[in-house]
Amino acid sequence: MIDVCLLGTSALLPLPERALTAATLGCGGRSILFDCGEGTQTAARRHGVSLMKADLIALTHYHGDHIFGLPGLLQTMHSLNRAEPLYLTGPEGLLQELSPLLRLAGRTCFEIRLLTLPPEGLPLSELAQGWPDGARLTAFPTRHRVPSQGYRFDLPRAGKFQPQKALALGVPVALWKLLQKGETVEHGGVTFRPEQVLGPARKGLRFVFSGDTAPCEALTQNAAGADLFICEGTYGEDEQAALAAEYGHMTFAEAAQTAREANVKALWLAHFSQRMENPADYLPNAQAFFPGAVCGQDGMRTVLHFEE
Amino acid sequence: MIDVCLLGTSALLPLPERALTAATLGCGGRSILFDCGEGTQTAARRHGVSLMKADLIALTHYHGDHIFGLPGLLQTMHSLNRAEPLYLTGPEGLLQELSPLLRLAGRTCFEIRLLTLPPEGLPLSELAQGWPDGARLTAFPTRHRVPSQGYRFDLPRAGKFQPQKALALGVPVALWKLLQKGETVEHGGVTFRPEQVLGPARKGLRFVFSGDTAPCEALTQNAAGADLFICEGTYGEDEQAALAAEYGHMTFAEAAQTAREANVKALWLAHFSQRMENPADYLPNAQAFFPGAVCGQDGMRTVLHFEE
Repeated sequence: MIDVCLLGTSALLPLPERALTAATLGCGGRSILFDCGEGTQTAARRHGVSLMKADLIALTHYHGDHIFGLPGLLQTMHSLNRAEPLYLTGPEGLLQELSPLLRLAGRTCFEIRLLTLPPEGLPLSELAQGWPDGARLTAFPTRHRVPSQGYRFDLPRAGKFQPQKALALGVPVALWKLLQKGETVEHGGVTFRPEQVLGPARKGLRFVFSGDTAPCEALTQNAAGADLFICEGTYGEDEQAALAAEYGHMTFAEAAQTAREANVKALWLAHFSQRMENPADYLPNAQAFFPGAVCGQDGMRTVLHFEE
Repeated sequence: MIDVCLLGTSALLPLPERALTAATLGCGGRSILFDCGEGTQTAARRHGVSLMKADLIALTHYHGDHIFGLPGLLQTMHSLNRAEPLYLTGPEGLLQELSPLLRLAGRTCFEIRLLTLPPEGLPLSELAQGWPDGARLTAFPTRHRVPSQGYRFDLPRAGKFQPQKALALGVPVALWKLLQKGETVEHGGVTFRPEQVLGPARKGLRFVFSGDTAPCEALTQNAAGADLFICEGTYGEDEQAALAAEYGHMTFAEAAQTAREANVKALWLAHFSQRMENPADYLPNAQAFFPGAVCGQDGMRTVLHFEE
């Protein structure tokens, strides 16, 4: 299962009732923070999300409204005696862009490690214990005015355990649970592999966070079949498409079209221009293309479960 | 008149219901912001205070919880097309400490000017039109773990206009208002000075903002007779005095003793440790020394008027 919390939904400016766009994904007791604008740490507290268990902060790009919360968050983690290393990742320019922020934060009692995700994605179990086997974070390039990337999180699901196969192979019942969890086990000199007792792999879970971007092929491809797709929708009106394109953003309609093409299960719009006092007023523009589209709200939270 | 708004009351960490300690002082349509931690711009919006009319940001010291809101605020002012120059002041090390934050903020469409206040205080009318004649901001050294200063704002009040003197001197009635406002005027080759038609200067208004500090003589001296004294009270319990001293802070009791010695009119405590869930629980420790002490709350606001 995956626990997603949308910490904020504002673009550019933090507003009293709308924090800057950021989100957390929790799984196996660990978590990832996507973007960290001014006030993100406060938004997390407000919504009861602890960032102390975040192993990774994944930045979509280096504009201030997505990174200015870092020095304060790092100092807070320091003052709360964080012990585990914290990983930071982002698009091209990571070291150069983050160095000034890290210098501002000063010395921390925990290690900070900058990380570039491998093209095939990062197995999160490499960062910390707790992440389920196979949980993987992949970055993909997006189309903003500066180097930018979105993120895809995949949690695979093994096939169904088939007791009759295990019985036929003579696997002791005590070892079934381990095989079911995907581990290879040995008993009496014989090695049993999960694929010997599991059915075909089942549908896993996918979460996608767009960051700031104009519509682009990589986003559609990576969002394919996502169980939850948090997508920027900076502008509500269709007539703002040219403006959106100019600034490397999307309208509600464009986000919904992407969601439809990618055949996602759920779409939450976020990153609303402050000009939209009530983003829900423009929701029909998204629902025309993706009827299930919803406007993200600060603190909106969901738990994604494997299908029954 | 002076309009003071306490934007936050937290120390070290911004909390959902307690922003980092900062305050604004408005006068003559202009304003000063004291300190700017992460979230200060949001707190200002929340409490209906526009920072666009702030001519000066006066920093008490360069710890993160007092300055990390600067890059975001500067970018916001830029995106809102601020035109007027913005002055920044603070204790020793201003250029060195602020340079990284200014670099993060990037180019702004308005000028940023670093300023060291002269020992006799800065006449604010030198910064922008609107500040009343004589309004003056003075910095004084405080006792924290790093170079730090508190601020004293003084708004003097001229003597009462004495029509019989003006009549006796033959000043045309049309010029009375100017003389009353403290201006020197000329008519028919004769120069009239305000002191010729005004009674003795009357009690003005004084506002004092302590910043982070242990009790010290300069603070008591500068707070003398203040109409409003916003003083840090990081720790509520008397037993925390040693801890407070170690970190260059104060207990409620120490803040109240300072207020009593300085004979201030009103004391608002601020900069509360997050350990104090409800600072008001400890208020009696302050009221034992200064009965009128109150615990500051985010958004607390007052207008100080000249005495009738």
